[in-house]
Amino acid sequence: MQSAIGVGLIGTGYMGKCHALAWNGVKAVFGDGPRPVLVHLAEVNEELARQKADEFGFAKATGDWRDLIADPDVDVVSVTTPNAFHAEMAIAALEAGKHVWCEKPMAVALADAERMAAAAQASGKVAVLGYNYIQNPLIRQLGTILADGTIGTVNHVRLEMDEDFMADPEALFYWKSEASSGYGALDDFGVHPLSLLQVLFGPVTRVFAHLSKPYADRPTREGPRRAVETFDTASVLFEVGSDISGVMALNRSAWGRKGRIVLQIFGSKGSIVYDQERMNELQLYTASDRSTEQGFRTILAGPQHRPYDRFIPAPGHGLGFNDLKIIECHELLNAISGASARVIDFSTGLIIEQAVHAMFESHRRGGWVICG
Amino acid sequence: MQSAIGVGLIGTGYMGKCHALAWNGVKAVFGDGPRPVLVHLAEVNEELARQKADEFGFAKATGDWRDLIADPDVDVVSVTTPNAFHAEMAIAALEAGKHVWCEKPMAVALADAERMAAAAQASGKVAVLGYNYIQNPLIRQLGTILADGTIGTVNHVRLEMDEDFMADPEALFYWKSEASSGYGALDDFGVHPLSLLQVLFGPVTRVFAHLSKPYADRPTREGPRRAVETFDTASVLFEVGSDISGVMALNRSAWGRKGRIVLQIFGSKGSIVYDQERMNELQLYTASDRSTEQGFRTILAGPQHRPYDRFIPAPGHGLGFNDLKIIECHELLNAISGASARVIDFSTGLIIEQAVHAMFESHRRGGWVICG
Amino acid sequence: MQSAIGVGLIGTGYMGKCHALAWNGVKAVFGDGPRPVLVHLAEVNEELARQKADEFGFAKATGDWRDLIADPDVDVVSVTTPNAFHAEMAIAALEAGKHVWCEKPMAVALADAERMAAAAQASGKVAVLGYNYIQNPLIRQLGTILADGTIGTVNHVRLEMDEDFMADPEALFYWKSEASSGYGALDDFGVHPLSLLQVLFGPVTRVFAHLSKPYADRPTREGPRRAVETFDTASVLFEVGSDISGVMALNRSAWGRKGRIVLQIFGSKGSIVYDQERMNELQLYTASDRSTEQGFRTILAGPQHRPYDRFIPAPGHGLGFNDLKIIECHELLNAISGASARVIDFSTGLIIEQAVHAMFESHRRGGWVICG
Amino acid sequence: MQSAIGVGLIGTGYMGKCHALAWNGVKAVFGDGPRPVLVHLAEVNEELARQKADEFGFAKATGDWRDLIADPDVDVVSVTTPNAFHAEMAIAALEAGKHVWCEKPMAVALADAERMAAAAQASGKVAVLGYNYIQNPLIRQLGTILADGTIGTVNHVRLEMDEDFMADPEALFYWKSEASSGYGALDDFGVHPLSLLQVLFGPVTRVFAHLSKPYADRPTREGPRRAVETFDTASVLFEVGSDISGVMALNRSAWGRKGRIVLQIFGSKGSIVYDQERMNELQLYTASDRSTEQGFRTILAGPQHRPYDRFIPAPGHGLGFNDLKIIECHELLNAISGASARVIDFSTGLIIEQAVHAMFESHRRGGWVICG
Repeated sequence: MQSAIGVGLIGTGYMGKCHALAWNGVKAVFGDGPRPVLVHLAEVNEELARQKADEFGFAKATGDWRDLIADPDVDVVSVTTPNAFHAEMAIAALEAGKHVWCEKPMAVALADAERMAAAAQASGKVAVLGYNYIQNPLIRQLGTILADGTIGTVNHVRLEMDEDFMADPEALFYWKSEASSGYGALDDFGVHPLSLLQVLFGPVTRVFAHLSKPYADRPTREGPRRAVETFDTASVLFEVGSDISGVMALNRSAWGRKGRIVLQIFGSKGSIVYDQERMNELQLYTASDRSTEQGFRTILAGPQHRPYDRFIPAPGHGLGFNDLKIIECHELLNAISGASARVIDFSTGLIIEQAVHAMFESHRRGGWVICG
Repeated sequence: MQSAIGVGLIGTGYMGKCHALAWNGVKAVFGDGPRPVLVHLAEVNEELARQKADEFGFAKATGDWRDLIADPDVDVVSVTTPNAFHAEMAIAALEAGKHVWCEKPMAVALADAERMAAAAQASGKVAVLGYNYIQNPLIRQLGTILADGTIGTVNHVRLEMDEDFMADPEALFYWKSEASSGYGALDDFGVHPLSLLQVLFGPVTRVFAHLSKPYADRPTREGPRRAVETFDTASVLFEVGSDISGVMALNRSAWGRKGRIVLQIFGSKGSIVYDQERMNELQLYTASDRSTEQGFRTILAGPQHRPYDRFIPAPGHGLGFNDLKIIECHELLNAISGASARVIDFSTGLIIEQAVHAMFESHRRGGWVICG
Repeated sequence: MQSAIGVGLIGTGYMGKCHALAWNGVKAVFGDGPRPVLVHLAEVNEELARQKADEFGFAKATGDWRDLIADPDVDVVSVTTPNAFHAEMAIAALEAGKHVWCEKPMAVALADAERMAAAAQASGKVAVLGYNYIQNPLIRQLGTILADGTIGTVNHVRLEMDEDFMADPEALFYWKSEASSGYGALDDFGVHPLSLLQVLFGPVTRVFAHLSKPYADRPTREGPRRAVETFDTASVLFEVGSDISGVMALNRSAWGRKGRIVLQIFGSKGSIVYDQERMNELQLYTASDRSTEQGFRTILAGPQHRPYDRFIPAPGHGLGFNDLKIIECHELLNAISGASARVIDFSTGLIIEQAVHAMFESHRRGGWVICG
Repeated sequence: MQSAIGVGLIGTGYMGKCHALAWNGVKAVFGDGPRPVLVHLAEVNEELARQKADEFGFAKATGDWRDLIADPDVDVVSVTTPNAFHAEMAIAALEAGKHVWCEKPMAVALADAERMAAAAQASGKVAVLGYNYIQNPLIRQLGTILADGTIGTVNHVRLEMDEDFMADPEALFYWKSEASSGYGALDDFGVHPLSLLQVLFGPVTRVFAHLSKPYADRPTREGPRRAVETFDTASVLFEVGSDISGVMALNRSAWGRKGRIVLQIFGSKGSIVYDQERMNELQLYTASDRSTEQGFRTILAGPQHRPYDRFIPAPGHGLGFNDLKIIECHELLNAISGASARVIDFSTGLIIEQAVHAMFESHRRGGWVICG
């Protein structure tokens, strides 16, 4: 295995910084794999690029992302720009022979996502999406519990994802309320619970969705209110795997919810509940417990839940959101080194995007739509 | 106001006993209203009738419920028999000039529920359904919070109701798996969350439902497995009130859930969450709190939440499930005395039944169905 | 067994009503035992006595409790008056050949409690104290778990009891701040957690206590502030059973706590946590669970936890505070009928009172005090 | 301000790695301050030193920590070795003109802690202890709430710290059960809750403590059981600040508790509860809320709680245990740069150590001991 790998980072916002933190920490956390060398950082504003390169520890900075992609010292490119730019940048990077780590969702238009998956396929390079929630050691544990048959055959699943960044009806109209940004909650963050579904149960097969707008219009800086074009809530009935019925509810106007992703999984021998706002806890109920002592048990994350042990040897001390990105980065490096890796690559990501678009189509038609 | 009221009770099972406890306790709890005189108890087995009359404190016992209805000392009749008998008994009682307190749901067939509502209308008597969850002081408080505008305009609602009495796939086939018992979770207990919706937001206007069977068949005492005919889960998209979008998920095969009814209500200024398994708690989030100190607050039931004060003067000491029935009984007595009362009468109950049947129709057709 | 038992009730406040509800409901709930006949009610104000007799269903009313004790139709007397009156009334009732059901604590002065225990002993009658929290089916389950050895040998225990009825520093000075009412939180409600300790582990053997006053003085109706004479908080180190170390913290000025009684029990194979504010839940951790799936499980009360089943056949539906009094009433009737009963009688109650006084003595001396 | 700072790290165990992660991440997280240059790593085994230097990104490795202290490129030394070595290493580093970041507790013997504080004082260098829990943004928020008077005047405090790494009675005897390691839970981790007390309320003034041994002896590899010399539980009554009464309970044999540090703070206008196992949540009750809507609110950490915003711009996404160390590292750098910093330096650390020793003295004497 190579001892170092050259890293390029495009974008320095929320996710750009998150990638930067992962690249800075991954070697010290895991100890194995190549040492990431932070080679090149691109940001649309060159001065900002230089400042962020200094902060994040990158050697070079540029205002033109194409410079970065042309840089022969760069082996892997983090794409963390707004969704509309993903396709162009990711495809260019792949075509330049770089591995790609691109934030989710893949793209606004399904056609773009398809082009990205095709480019990844053609390149032979590793192309991974930033679905970090699947990296939580307790989500892995959840998968193990399912695989062990501890809760028997799963027959019903519920998903919720709620935040409140769109909850204030008097917040100014901004790009997330524009149709050009996508459908709304569905693609904005519905892809996160869908990534969990995908990893745990495989592709969604059939969907019925209904989207709604909590607020018809919003104030603008200029004065007059402007009609909201996207849907801040989405409610979906679906089927997944072999005969598992499901419900998914999304709301980005849910006052008080900050990073809630709730999974409820019901099986023939037990149940599992997970809430991302308490990401270091997993609830498990097993029907085989003594009748007077049955109950949902709250499993606290600990070193027995790999790779928690790489971060902290003591149980119950708590991983954070950014730690999930470090795990994701390590899985990306595993994939690059040819080892088996827990990632959602562009081809699997495309399945998630197809489900999202099928849901919107279902909403439009008012009936069930078959996915894929 | 009359100083006493004669009570007849038909049925002595789960709900029969629950009514009996309410009739025994209501005067001591509330202090006001007529004293219930426990006149007559009917049970299909006359010996059991006599035993239960002794236990519950009823003066007379009969194996023929028509005796009870013919008893001139009986002013009000509790109907707590299996759903299939509700229509016949309730209508007979109303026609005999008795007030009726009938358990939910009204009937298996919509036509029966319609006949019951018509009979109540024709009789001029009070005809009330046993929707006890609406009587929780915290559900009243929830209504007050909504009416006060504390969480602004409601735009999205979620309901869940889950129990696990059908969760064991190896439990013997019994009548709840027969089509003659109804649709399954939908009418078996879906009417409970619908009663909450009705009281808080009015009638459901449009529904899309999907029912499913966690287990295709069940063992029988005779040996061969028998195909399950009812649906233990139901997932519903709906609209209620003025443009409130909603999701309802029901599961009577939900391992670990015992009496769960969860309501999540999202408004333009805040959110409310309620879980029946913690029926003495209500969660409230208000966006107007200081930004660094915002959070869902857990309101513990206390005497400030009427009529908790009639049970216990100290806060946080906890009402129980049976206490809700005492409150319901008191509201029934209020209605009989001509005072305003918080009840779901047969005409409102019919609206709930219509919604249930619309949901099944939607499931059958695979599309939206307009209610009412 | 006799088919009926004559009941007298002295006092109609918080606990008086609670006893009345129990006497009204016990037969219908349990089905067995004699029917309580509500014979005589005494209240210091005769008009109030008549009104409450009507509400609670008692046949006779009196303004003089000695009339009630002299009533030959009364077999058992509920004593629910302020603590200062317990000794005189309970002793008079016992001497008149009545069984006694007296609210806790026994008395303000230890000498009075001793006289009560002696009178009970001399009378040969049943004399039971109103320690209702020990009647929770989940507290029985807790005892079963301990007895089964599920958590091994217990080595450490923590108790907390907190309410906030004294938390407002500007609330008027009233009798609970007077030294004549007792020590403060210690005897006012510390006896409740001590009753749980007694039932689960036996007598406390050694104590070290420190009491404190959150507020030095309080306003009076007359104007000038008056020095507070009682201690609203108490913190106690203790030993109980064979080498179990313990900590108990009490606070009746604990804003936000309404009826909190928390028990934490640590053993060599597991732990148990109970919180009275969620009285239908019990937390159990067993070290023998699989390492990746260990966690505190939340046991929801259900019919498998006797005698929950006498109230409700379905699990997770919730008992209330008043239901515990009905169970206590049933245990009292068991004791009267000569059956084994789960009660704290006057002799065991005296052990609790002695512990309380030892705690105060320890506070006064600043050192450990041996109990009993 | 200097643009870079040379870092030396002694020790590569649990805390050594934790420091390494902090040094790797601090610049990218905060953006400001000097860039840490990872100069020199010392580990007792030279081969391990080289391996860890590679993993953690340090340029040089040594098997002799004195080499590291002699290295002129090192400006600040992380001391993360077992407690017995802290004094010697920290003092040597200070005398060599290095800043020191030393893990807690300072030392086993009080005299060593005193020498460390004196050396820090004499050196004029920054000497900071690794009390990371005080760095939680929500603990800062807690301090702000107190300072704002939101819960009025604090009068009662409770602390608990529990883990279960000593809970198995059949785990082999090891150094933590030897008297040479210290007193047990008291100094092993009691210093953590004491650090929170110190930051929020200042020095503890008076203590009464009782220590106990859940297990008298433990098996040894050699066969015979060996008597345990340390105390796995400690229960303490104390006073802090101006007349605040307190209780502290520690247990390192508490099955099911993994990283629990619970604080309960009661004031004249409200209460606060914090639990380290849910380190992204803070509970606040304010008596000024409307009476029907009062309750403990669960505040979720977000960017409004500085410096959460440096890690994640979105609320409710969760910091982890290691993130607290990054904040601590940043505060250390602030201190080095002469800015105001939230740290526990050696002189404040000594106050905590004195309290611990006073507690043990109190246990020995069975009476109150004045601190300091």
